[in-house]
Amino acid sequence: MEWINQNKILIVGLGLIGGGYAKALSRIGYDVYAIDANPDSIGYAIDNGIILDGSIEPTPELVGSADAVIFAIYPDRLVKWIKDYQQYFKPGIRITDVTGVKCSVVYDVQAILRDDVEFIAAHPMAGREVYGVRNSTERIFHDANYLVVPTEKNTPEAIEWCKRLGKLIGFRKVSVLSPEEHDKAIGYVSQLTHVIAVALMTCNDNRHLSDYTGDSFRDLTRIARINDEMWSTLFFMNKDALLQEMNMFINEMTKMRDLLQSDDVEGMRAKLRLSNYRRSWFDDNKKEGK
Amino acid sequence: MEWINQNKILIVGLGLIGGGYAKALSRIGYDVYAIDANPDSIGYAIDNGIILDGSIEPTPELVGSADAVIFAIYPDRLVKWIKDYQQYFKPGIRITDVTGVKCSVVYDVQAILRDDVEFIAAHPMAGREVYGVRNSTERIFHDANYLVVPTEKNTPEAIEWCKRLGKLIGFRKVSVLSPEEHDKAIGYVSQLTHVIAVALMTCNDNRHLSDYTGDSFRDLTRIARINDEMWSTLFFMNKDALLQEMNMFINEMTKMRDLLQSDDVEGMRAKLRLSNYRRSWFDDNKKEGK
Repeated sequence: MEWINQNKILIVGLGLIGGGYAKALSRIGYDVYAIDANPDSIGYAIDNGIILDGSIEPTPELVGSADAVIFAIYPDRLVKWIKDYQQYFKPGIRITDVTGVKCSVVYDVQAILRDDVEFIAAHPMAGREVYGVRNSTERIFHDANYLVVPTEKNTPEAIEWCKRLGKLIGFRKVSVLSPEEHDKAIGYVSQLTHVIAVALMTCNDNRHLSDYTGDSFRDLTRIARINDEMWSTLFFMNKDALLQEMNMFINEMTKMRDLLQSDDVEGMRAKLRLSNYRRSWFDDNKKEGK
Repeated sequence: MEWINQNKILIVGLGLIGGGYAKALSRIGYDVYAIDANPDSIGYAIDNGIILDGSIEPTPELVGSADAVIFAIYPDRLVKWIKDYQQYFKPGIRITDVTGVKCSVVYDVQAILRDDVEFIAAHPMAGREVYGVRNSTERIFHDANYLVVPTEKNTPEAIEWCKRLGKLIGFRKVSVLSPEEHDKAIGYVSQLTHVIAVALMTCNDNRHLSDYTGDSFRDLTRIARINDEMWSTLFFMNKDALLQEMNMFINEMTKMRDLLQSDDVEGMRAKLRLSNYRRSWFDDNKKEGK
């Protein structure tokens, strides 16, 4: 099954990410349809040529005509959606998602999914501090990473298909890793960073300090403007991995506190040098586009 | 003593900040001179019209002809410089600095300073992850805050003079606060954020994760590319205030860890909502230019 034959793409959940996908796929020439509980989102997307048609609920016609389905809904709602509506799927289709946690989603979905439909998980690492299809844009994908997260149940063809989808939508880099690798990596690079940004805002009523802040404070707290429902769901769905990462970070902060407390200048400078070395490596690695 | 009569400005320490000051003041029309131990910095600055003349060491002629002196050297070197060379100062001049810590510097300098010279402390909250006069630019000041940090020893005229200097150089916002207020605020908005960025880099050999990072990780670790000598000095010179802020933050991270551990979804969501509320307030406040 080639992309050229998969004309009809159904997007379930037309928010910031679903909307961005719809824009990209419509622009390339696919027939894109959407389901979203919010009639305003569907109306806006039709009026602006982002989708051909849509519905506020899953109908047998809309779901049944899709050659591929992309789920851009909250992770805790995916399993129930599949249970309730998978009977409508056309035989042989592939479905994917955009969920930021994997172990707690992928295995459950694959366990209940019809045998003639394949679920290949993916995580587009893109976002903004605003929400909804009205704020969606393809641009947020262009400098972002796209992670394909197969299990042993997935076929090589579905993995290739999903990698191709990431490239079609415009992601800078497409990688493949297991659900376990994914959740550990995301616990560190994404969830821990969000917890840190939140803790920096909540540990102190800092509003009187806004005249004294520099770039560093603004950078570290940009992501503190956070959707509490979505991120709380993600944190608890990745509880074990995130707990490990949080404990590792708290332990390191405590070590640095002890270095300061005990006047260990050389120990502190060694930490700063290691940080500088690693971050420089990171910059240089990125510049070369590796 | 008005700015119009203070033609000769001496900058001691011609690095990223000193160089930026020199460029701004030369452009406005002041006669700017500099002292820096690195002959390349002095030569480059003369060749590029950033300063009129300079020296690699403090000479009686250069120091003695200055109508104002701006110290842009490491904070732990300021007191010794004053001790060694203050006999060269022209009577009645004002001197200022760019040091990122205040309590441990300002009182010591004022205690040993000649009675006919006034030291009014300042902190330009600007920086980059690169160093030296060759990388200096006025641009880093335009969206930054300038803090004037007087003590009881300072005159109203010197405070006004220093505020004027910050405006002349091009800072977005000029504020006045005490050394104690300054060090507490800076311990939180600047030093704690740098410690966090460092700990995030040092807690984990994350180089294999560079394909999986998004904006959040890049934002939180940009400042982890850090000058270990300068920042270690700043941390230890503000030890008490920074320790307080680190303990407050570690405590908050631990609370969030406990919320996750104990499956307290509502408690976690309350933290995220508070974070979102405060950060939104911060953005809105900034937009209005308050």
